[in-house]
Amino acid sequence: MAASPLAPLLVFARIAAFLVAGLVLIWALVFKTSFIPHSHSSPDQFIYAVLHPLLMVIGFIILSGEAILVHRWLPGSRNMKKTVHLGMQGVALASGVFGIWTKFHGKDGVVANFYSLHSWMGLICVLLFAFQWLMGFLSFWHMGEVRRVRVNVLPWHVFLGLYTYSLAVATAETGLLEKLTFIQTKKNIPRHGSESIVVNGLGLALALLSGIVILAAVSPRSQQPHIHQTKPLYAHAKY
Amino acid sequence: MAASPLAPLLVFARIAAFLVAGLVLIWALVFKTSFIPHSHSSPDQFIYAVLHPLLMVIGFIILSGEAILVHRWLPGSRNMKKTVHLGMQGVALASGVFGIWTKFHGKDGVVANFYSLHSWMGLICVLLFAFQWLMGFLSFWHMGEVRRVRVNVLPWHVFLGLYTYSLAVATAETGLLEKLTFIQTKKNIPRHGSESIVVNGLGLALALLSGIVILAAVSPRSQQPHIHQTKPLYAHAKY
Repeated sequence: MAASPLAPLLVFARIAAFLVAGLVLIWALVFKTSFIPHSHSSPDQFIYAVLHPLLMVIGFIILSGEAILVHRWLPGSRNMKKTVHLGMQGVALASGVFGIWTKFHGKDGVVANFYSLHSWMGLICVLLFAFQWLMGFLSFWHMGEVRRVRVNVLPWHVFLGLYTYSLAVATAETGLLEKLTFIQTKKNIPRHGSESIVVNGLGLALALLSGIVILAAVSPRSQQPHIHQTKPLYAHAKY
Repeated sequence: MAASPLAPLLVFARIAAFLVAGLVLIWALVFKTSFIPHSHSSPDQFIYAVLHPLLMVIGFIILSGEAILVHRWLPGSRNMKKTVHLGMQGVALASGVFGIWTKFHGKDGVVANFYSLHSWMGLICVLLFAFQWLMGFLSFWHMGEVRRVRVNVLPWHVFLGLYTYSLAVATAETGLLEKLTFIQTKKNIPRHGSESIVVNGLGLALALLSGIVILAAVSPRSQQPHIHQTKPLYAHAKY
């Protein structure tokens, strides 16, 4: 592993993931009152409101990031890696769907929830994710599939997967801003208060995590000076 | 160009860019009242408030996206492409810096403006962009530079450039959500009203634009079945 640039990247990715998970847990557990949607909210509504960021950040974003990285560190056969990747992405997808469902549980219903950019981005994101999961299942898992189809589908799967992951992070950032602006305006929590610091820190940690995960996903496995390993990101460039 | 997948992508990128530019202009010109920060705002403050989204979206994001694509379509020598890329990114950077500066012109001053995730993400983004521009200038432009340094720096320049571009888009999305949540809460504009539709449409168009620009940037130039052209995104994967 001495020549591999991946080992430190994988360590940093896990540190960033723990930071993100810690911050979202602190937000949910310490600043509970921000998650009470209305003054007459039932305990059920409160629990669903807290579950939404937890499921989306830990279950959807962190877990799908780990599933992306499975191909970069898990030893064993290709089928083993694919099985673990598919299984983890399945759990992430389920978390995402359940996380969206928690928003339909309030008094507003389904349609009334789709008014904001955050909700639309989130819906597109989960639909893309479900499409990717299905395509991954069909293309990589299905035994009758021919090799040529897999060769053509793989770069699209990788690109669309990383795009969906980035979109999920951007959607989370908009959700943080929407929530924070709302409680700063409505409930008068201070702009430089401890909750603002935790939420802003969570947003920055998410941006950091996504950068490391994507870098680890697209990095070549070794740093040997084979130009063709690093060149194709800009395949036309000449040195 | 028959075998190139880039031609339609470049057309789509321009359509998305025009859509984004049109929507941000409609927002700034038709829904002016949303940009009046306080009831006693001066005309100056109003102009700076309108200038911020225009400079950030058109001057910073759209222009830097075009500068990324210069390498994919501009004919001529490599030095020509580099000059145009560097020049366009320089204008984009200036727009970004001026766009941030407009926020310091209000009554709040510099420090008071840095309270939100949007402001922190934006600051990190412009700093990364400035670093990239300087590194690009030094590595690609400086005549005394050795070839080996450029070979090592290029993949990092490409990755960090696309990451910074994505971060700029994510920052813009948070800005849209922050603004929209604020005016929906404070000024009681309807959640399903025409301004909400324009701003949400702008956010979705930005997400679309960034996806197409990044896809065009990382796509191979031709669709000939050379596996090594598409393989290296996941360099370890076997078919």
